[in-house]
Amino acid sequence: MNVITDSILVLENGLILRDPSTSEPERHERTLISGDTITAVNSNKLIDLTPGQVIDCSDCLIMPGLVNCHVHSAMSLFRGLADDLPLRTWLEEFIFPCEARHVSQEMVLLGSTLSAIEMALSGVTTFADAYFFMEAAAHAAINVGLRAVIAQGVVDFPTPDARTPGSWKDRAFQFFESVPSRSTITPALFCHSPYLCGTDTYLEAAEICRSHDTKLFSHVAETFTEVQQVRSKYNVTPVEFLNSSGVLDDSFVAVHCVHLTARDREILRDARVGIVHCPESNMKLASGSPRIKDLLEVGLTVGLGTDGAASNNNLDLFEEMRSASLLAKLVSNDPEAVSAGEALTMATIGGARVLGLDHMIGTLDPGKQADIIIVDLRQPHLEPLYNPISQLVYCARGSDVRDVIVAGRQIVRNRRLCSPGYDDFRKLALDFATQIATDTGKKLFLT
Amino acid sequence: MNVITDSILVLENGLILRDPSTSEPERHERTLISGDTITAVNSNKLIDLTPGQVIDCSDCLIMPGLVNCHVHSAMSLFRGLADDLPLRTWLEEFIFPCEARHVSQEMVLLGSTLSAIEMALSGVTTFADAYFFMEAAAHAAINVGLRAVIAQGVVDFPTPDARTPGSWKDRAFQFFESVPSRSTITPALFCHSPYLCGTDTYLEAAEICRSHDTKLFSHVAETFTEVQQVRSKYNVTPVEFLNSSGVLDDSFVAVHCVHLTARDREILRDARVGIVHCPESNMKLASGSPRIKDLLEVGLTVGLGTDGAASNNNLDLFEEMRSASLLAKLVSNDPEAVSAGEALTMATIGGARVLGLDHMIGTLDPGKQADIIIVDLRQPHLEPLYNPISQLVYCARGSDVRDVIVAGRQIVRNRRLCSPGYDDFRKLALDFATQIATDTGKKLFLT
Repeated sequence: MNVITDSILVLENGLILRDPSTSEPERHERTLISGDTITAVNSNKLIDLTPGQVIDCSDCLIMPGLVNCHVHSAMSLFRGLADDLPLRTWLEEFIFPCEARHVSQEMVLLGSTLSAIEMALSGVTTFADAYFFMEAAAHAAINVGLRAVIAQGVVDFPTPDARTPGSWKDRAFQFFESVPSRSTITPALFCHSPYLCGTDTYLEAAEICRSHDTKLFSHVAETFTEVQQVRSKYNVTPVEFLNSSGVLDDSFVAVHCVHLTARDREILRDARVGIVHCPESNMKLASGSPRIKDLLEVGLTVGLGTDGAASNNNLDLFEEMRSASLLAKLVSNDPEAVSAGEALTMATIGGARVLGLDHMIGTLDPGKQADIIIVDLRQPHLEPLYNPISQLVYCARGSDVRDVIVAGRQIVRNRRLCSPGYDDFRKLALDFATQIATDTGKKLFLT
Repeated sequence: MNVITDSILVLENGLILRDPSTSEPERHERTLISGDTITAVNSNKLIDLTPGQVIDCSDCLIMPGLVNCHVHSAMSLFRGLADDLPLRTWLEEFIFPCEARHVSQEMVLLGSTLSAIEMALSGVTTFADAYFFMEAAAHAAINVGLRAVIAQGVVDFPTPDARTPGSWKDRAFQFFESVPSRSTITPALFCHSPYLCGTDTYLEAAEICRSHDTKLFSHVAETFTEVQQVRSKYNVTPVEFLNSSGVLDDSFVAVHCVHLTARDREILRDARVGIVHCPESNMKLASGSPRIKDLLEVGLTVGLGTDGAASNNNLDLFEEMRSASLLAKLVSNDPEAVSAGEALTMATIGGARVLGLDHMIGTLDPGKQADIIIVDLRQPHLEPLYNPISQLVYCARGSDVRDVIVAGRQIVRNRRLCSPGYDDFRKLALDFATQIATDTGKKLFLT
């Protein structure tokens, strides 16, 4: 019988899934968390416990927290503002003018906090964010208690936080210096796309990221129009353009990858680039469907992203797993493509690998960070339970997540934030949304 | 000031959406239900009320209940038993043997009850069911309190409840006589498909349905294989086969319609056949994607179905709306295809029209049946609320439904069944699932 200290948290009972890429759910006895770290997984050792240290997981599945590899979290403030529109109208008449007018430190803090709350409540424990004023996004992640990779946006034209052309580099250095330093926050950069960033920008951004030992994210081959633009400008595919720019290696994260050639896939695989798949955004904007089955078959590492709430419109990674699997089956004409286990892998350890965090998160192993979700399986839409992994991917919803622990700290309990944050914060966010509504001639309901 | 009787139920506050096909959400004052009927919609008349008669809908949207136009509800007992398999393996090695061994009056009662509970909790107020032993499915609908169209299954080979070839007709007559007679239950027939039912069977089934003034459902053109089989046998498309059999008219409901020619669409439109679209099932089984944009453009009436839980795997019509819209945008290469409003129309009044129930349900109008759901909009993933219809389709989940009223009777309150049914019933369903697990060499978790 061991005596344990106050900083220990114990999960008891239920089922546990240690690693979606290799293991099956097991009957669970006891998992120990000490500080921010998992110290024992499914142990049957008896220990002395004091009240409040034990979470009963009966009827639940304990599993690694979900990893959202691509989101523009501030954009939740634009959710539902402009849907069912052609891409160009959506961008040029709504999103760009809205961004020009409203993006600020305050907007990013409010929008990112709303998104972080939504993600926490639906089982995301790590998100990779890409936008402007990203110190504010880091604060949002810290306030809600999530782990995050925070990528400051880079484009070749003036932005709300780098108002002269070329000033993005000063802004990037400033960002790396001013972003809050926490073990749960990884600063990074995000070059928007090969049509908004030139060779020099990509190369300089890649150098800054390598010198900071972090990732460079970029949208790549999202639309057919992008492929045409890059072809007409450089006479190569977007992937070939990036490759010839010398930026593709294992610190590069390529988001979307809808329109790739077989040669593109080989280039990405050989350079060990991480891929992020955002199925619902690609469908909603009619961008097309990446061949995820082919990407996995050539050996690429793939994570899942929700993209921003302006093009999804929610940040529920359970839905994204399901859509990834269903879409792959449809476009491959193969009901075996992207199985439930493969989708769950992408949403956990696959995503952790893409973000370079797989030594810390993505599976439940002693020594790893305690980023854990507890999913309530005793519900009519999840029964009978012949196959928990199938049920998670094909049936479960974000609202089935009962408890969320990040770095050993419980941030969601019984489907509610442990901090009183949401109601206090909500009024501020809705005041801001009211301004957006007024400016765009829309109405805000239920204010 | 009116004095009201005990049988009156009053909804107060929040927003109301009367008719998803024509109206926008309005600020709501008071809606009155007398017995099973809506008597006043968004009235500002003052009335005397006694406690218990008023449901406060602040922060919620009041809207017509969802209509699930195609489900095999007993099959929830097979949920997750066999996923990620080729269609033939799935059918021949798992589903057909399982059905041969386990389908019984008891199995249909238990599986359909589980499905009815799941549907009620996610905002479905009417479902159209198709399977065997359908008296039991009717009892399940009545027990849970849902409205249902209950279609007894017909095929040209022996079934669990019609064990000799050709005995389906006696079984059908027996079904029409023995199905419980309630205003909320409509008996009907379901011919499985043009590859499992011949011309005579379709014609006789259609005659029985016409004489009972009800619908004949059938899977139509679900897979490319079906189209090939029908072509090789009859030298026509499945729709042409049905048309030449003389069964296509406004009492016919064609489910799936994945592989249609332009001529097929015209035939269906001219015959005023109702169409049911099951996007997630079509994707998961890699059947293909119907051209819903084209179907709507030629003027066909389309409803949404979840299909059974063995091929979806949940019965959440919010998800199905989202998938219908996203899939249409993808396959039409058009982000304007199947707008949020069109998806919501298919899931409500469109489905009601397909089922021939639009004089009773599908919109909130005085004189119609009080089939109403109350959706909780004050949640992080549904804010800010610039566009409630967009939010319902692109962001909401079944679990956002707070209250459900069918025929004036509240069956879900604060996300729980009003009757104590689920826990009592659960043990019986899981005992049955244990037998299925044992027979198929699977394990049942969390029993």
